[in-house]
Amino acid sequence: MLEDKNKARTPLEKLGEFGLIDHLTKNFKINHPSSVKGIGDDAAVLDHSDKKTVLTTDLLVEGVHFDLSYMPLKHLGYKAVMVNLSDVYAMNAKATQITVSLAVSNRFPLEALEELYEGIALACKIYDVDLVGGDTTSSTKGMLISITALGEVAEADITYRSGAQANDLLVVTGDLGAAYMGFQVLEREKEVFKVNPNNQPDLSPYSYIVERQLKPEARRDIVHLLKKLGVKPTSMIDISDGLSSEILHLSKCSKVGCNLFEDKIPLDPTVITTCEEFKMDGTMVALSGGEDYELLFTIDQKDFDKIKGNPNLTVIGHMTEANEGNHLVTRANTKIPLTAQGWNSFTND
Amino acid sequence: MLEDKNKARTPLEKLGEFGLIDHLTKNFKINHPSSVKGIGDDAAVLDHSDKKTVLTTDLLVEGVHFDLSYMPLKHLGYKAVMVNLSDVYAMNAKATQITVSLAVSNRFPLEALEELYEGIALACKIYDVDLVGGDTTSSTKGMLISITALGEVAEADITYRSGAQANDLLVVTGDLGAAYMGFQVLEREKEVFKVNPNNQPDLSPYSYIVERQLKPEARRDIVHLLKKLGVKPTSMIDISDGLSSEILHLSKCSKVGCNLFEDKIPLDPTVITTCEEFKMDGTMVALSGGEDYELLFTIDQKDFDKIKGNPNLTVIGHMTEANEGNHLVTRANTKIPLTAQGWNSFTND
Repeated sequence: MLEDKNKARTPLEKLGEFGLIDHLTKNFKINHPSSVKGIGDDAAVLDHSDKKTVLTTDLLVEGVHFDLSYMPLKHLGYKAVMVNLSDVYAMNAKATQITVSLAVSNRFPLEALEELYEGIALACKIYDVDLVGGDTTSSTKGMLISITALGEVAEADITYRSGAQANDLLVVTGDLGAAYMGFQVLEREKEVFKVNPNNQPDLSPYSYIVERQLKPEARRDIVHLLKKLGVKPTSMIDISDGLSSEILHLSKCSKVGCNLFEDKIPLDPTVITTCEEFKMDGTMVALSGGEDYELLFTIDQKDFDKIKGNPNLTVIGHMTEANEGNHLVTRANTKIPLTAQGWNSFTND
Repeated sequence: MLEDKNKARTPLEKLGEFGLIDHLTKNFKINHPSSVKGIGDDAAVLDHSDKKTVLTTDLLVEGVHFDLSYMPLKHLGYKAVMVNLSDVYAMNAKATQITVSLAVSNRFPLEALEELYEGIALACKIYDVDLVGGDTTSSTKGMLISITALGEVAEADITYRSGAQANDLLVVTGDLGAAYMGFQVLEREKEVFKVNPNNQPDLSPYSYIVERQLKPEARRDIVHLLKKLGVKPTSMIDISDGLSSEILHLSKCSKVGCNLFEDKIPLDPTVITTCEEFKMDGTMVALSGGEDYELLFTIDQKDFDKIKGNPNLTVIGHMTEANEGNHLVTRANTKIPLTAQGWNSFTND
């Protein structure tokens, strides 16, 4: 519904594989001293010097992870980078480089890929990362984006999932569930559009949650904030699959349990009203919705004063001994076992 | 034609995304001291210490880069790793880590992915690289493999594409064109099989070239050999798209020209006989066939005595001033301009 049918269309075979890579990446500049050699050789050459290198990779598949009927290509490029940077920040690291590999069917003209790379370029610029490599090829169906992100971090600063201790506080950044409710709104409007293509949806009441779905931001600011506050989390993970799934990862890797307090889970007012509209439960949406790209971490209780009152950070629970298990403490003060109902591309439609 | 229809079939949704990754990677061991943390956190953590990190990525798409009607999945896994390691070795580096991302449609049972990962595991074992990350998701059609490979190399040892000088010798490893002729034989047998599924092809006369297509080896041995011989190439590239395309990359990046001598191009006898059978020209196949995964490099003439007579290395030409251009000197001693006719996934069927 957002597609402009009148755009110029240059078929990809006109450029060939090398021509295409050159064309799409020619405006990318190398900024980091650690990027010794970027695109243009058999491999990129990096030098993270006395820092450790962190490395993460994510695959986004059309029809599984994104729907181009409402996802503008520029946003998609931006989001694909965010998804990866979020993992780098979850290690408490500075993101420095990405590679972008792309498989596209011949239904995409050059101009579509230019839009996609505009989004990638914008993400690289705002988050100060260098595009140093990739691969571009045709697919037999649809679009697939595989991004690898690298970062650097001093050994002492690395936050693994495994460092949480009993009695540590559980902290989440921002608010949860917005991306998932944005997805619900976009899917509904897509169905309306199918019935009546002339209907222009008014998405303005939903702008916050739609933007959280279409153009999420990775929390680089939190890595800076924690450094400024003098707080090193005992464990950290990013929230891509829903809060409950991520809590269970931290608990399992750290060999602890967790009490999560329902009334502490931060929800934006738009999420609450949209949940009411869709007859969904806000807590369930936060627990299982996914794609928030917020950070979830644990801190020693002695660090509580340092984070107290910061509008970016909410204490939502505390870790316990492993044998106490993982529980949601509801508003009615009953304890329900936490189960992972995160997104699974092999079973969800 | 190589598929066993009676195998056990476990649907992927039974395991879910995390269960699948755990299951497929549980037997992979971390061997390199530079792999500080492998699979199991938001990102892997690496430490290449005082060495530089090299980084390369390749995407393989079913129906574009491979055909599962004759490519066994174990070989595919092995080959997908080789394609990437070849780029690491072309930097004169030691390969140390890979990540593997996989998108598969629900037509693949768990057992198919186990076979694929057996091939990946074998490649990791033989080539001494650690699997440190990846992503696994569903696709709407077919299989797609995205691998990123990392390596380490002392700054002084890096071989870029850009260091060749006029009068340097042009050297190739092994022999060329075999993988392409193996592909021709497999495609022919596939057509025969379509007509008569009971016909069992006798591929034994073609075993060398079929193996070069289905299970190529990256030339780690050459990196070791060059070190032992005390030769540092002035430039190096791996041969994935055909000799002529790679020569033109070296010439362009190094701002030189090249004379390539047709009678020096190393062809295996099986390639020569199969070319005769298919009425193809061996030189054309070597120039444009691709998928050889040999190394092409230039050396200073003073190093010639060090490589002379080595059965792995063949001098096939020499670099010239840029204004002399890039030429093939034929057996009849005529000069033909070299043009890149390497493989292009956007135009080739």
